[in-house]
Amino acid sequence: MAKGILFVVSAPAGCGKDTILEKALAKEINLCYSVSATTRAMRAGETEGISYYFKTREEFEKMIADGELLEHTEYCGNYYGTPKQTVLETLELGQNVVLKIEIEGAENVKKLMPEAVLVFILPPSMQELDRRLHKRGTEDEETIAKRLKQAEKEISFAVNYDYVIVNDDLNKAVRDFVAIVDAESFRTNRNKEYIDLLKNFTVK
Amino acid sequence: MAKGILFVVSAPAGCGKDTILEKALAKEINLCYSVSATTRAMRAGETEGISYYFKTREEFEKMIADGELLEHTEYCGNYYGTPKQTVLETLELGQNVVLKIEIEGAENVKKLMPEAVLVFILPPSMQELDRRLHKRGTEDEETIAKRLKQAEKEISFAVNYDYVIVNDDLNKAVRDFVAIVDAESFRTNRNKEYIDLLKNFTVK
Repeated sequence: MAKGILFVVSAPAGCGKDTILEKALAKEINLCYSVSATTRAMRAGETEGISYYFKTREEFEKMIADGELLEHTEYCGNYYGTPKQTVLETLELGQNVVLKIEIEGAENVKKLMPEAVLVFILPPSMQELDRRLHKRGTEDEETIAKRLKQAEKEISFAVNYDYVIVNDDLNKAVRDFVAIVDAESFRTNRNKEYIDLLKNFTVK
Repeated sequence: MAKGILFVVSAPAGCGKDTILEKALAKEINLCYSVSATTRAMRAGETEGISYYFKTREEFEKMIADGELLEHTEYCGNYYGTPKQTVLETLELGQNVVLKIEIEGAENVKKLMPEAVLVFILPPSMQELDRRLHKRGTEDEETIAKRLKQAEKEISFAVNYDYVIVNDDLNKAVRDFVAIVDAESFRTNRNKEYIDLLKNFTVK
C-alpha cells in the first residue's frame, strides 16, 4: 500500500480556506486533519487525542525544543502545533493528511518534509477580497485594511507553493482541490513499488 | 491567459489507452488531440489539416531533418509524426493538447519540451493484461506472448513518466486522468502571471 500524502493549505483571510476544506473533507476522499497539540484549556465536549493533544506550556515548549513539532504558532496567548509523530503514523497507514496553516508554518513543514504538497488559495482579485471582508461585517475599516495588506504579503509567498487555486466559485474551488489530492496519488514517485511489482512478474 | 499544457499518454497494448482518452475527451475538459503528419494516403472522408497533414515521403523526411517533429514513428511502411509548430500554436491559445505515443516518442517529447506532462497507463497485473489480450481474440498465442514481453519492457520505462494510472476500473481510470489534467493547470509555475497581477494590485 502506498503511503499517505501530506497536504498543506494556506490562504489569506477571506479566501474561503475553511469552507473549501470542510466541503472537500465531506466528500468521500482519502483526506483527514491531523490532531494538533495546544496549550489552551480543554472545552466542554472536547476529548484528549481527538480534539487536541492538550499540553501544559512547559510540555509544549519541550516539544518545540525536541523538534517534535512540524510547525507551531502562538495565538491569543496559547500555543498550537502539529506533532510530527502523529502525522507520520497517519501517513504510514496510507491515509492522506491535510494541515491548514500559515505561510511560516507551511515553509517549515516543507523544510522538514519536502515531499509535502503545498496548496495556496487565492482570491479572484484584491477588489473581490476587499468586498468579501466587508461583507463578513465582523471587522472595522482599520482591521480590513490590515488584513488586505497582510493578504498582499502572503500572496507573494504563493510562488513557493506547489499549487494555487483561485476561489472564484466555491464549488469549483472544492473540485479543484479534490483534483489535486487525487492527482498527487498518481505521481510516479509514489507508485514505484507497484511498478516494480508489475515489472518483476513474468506471465507463465 | 495561461498557456495550454502538453500531455503525453503511453501504455502497453491492452491497457485501454484509446478508450480512456476517448472517454476523457468526450467530457467537457480543456483537452484535444494534435493533428499528426503522415505519409499514408488520404482516405475517403479525411481532410487535409484536420484528419492529418498529408505529406510525401520526401517532405516528411525533410521535416525530420529540419527538427520540425516532436516525435515520429514508422508503421506499416508509413511515417506518422507530431509537428512541433502545430502543438506550440495550440498551446499558445491556452488549449491543452494530448499525444498518444510510444515510449521512445514520449522520451523525445520530454527532451524537447521538458514542461510536458507524461502519463503512463498500467494494467492492474500482468495476469489481467494476459487475460485481456486473450479476450480481444484478435491475436494468436505467439503474438500475445510477444505483446506481454513488450509490455514488461515498456512498464520498466514508466518510472520516467510523471504519473501512472492503473486501469483496473475503466471509469475510475478516466476520472483519474481527468484529475491529472485538471490538477496540472493549478501548478504554481503555470500561474505566476496571475500571482504577479494580484501581488501588484493595491486596493484603494
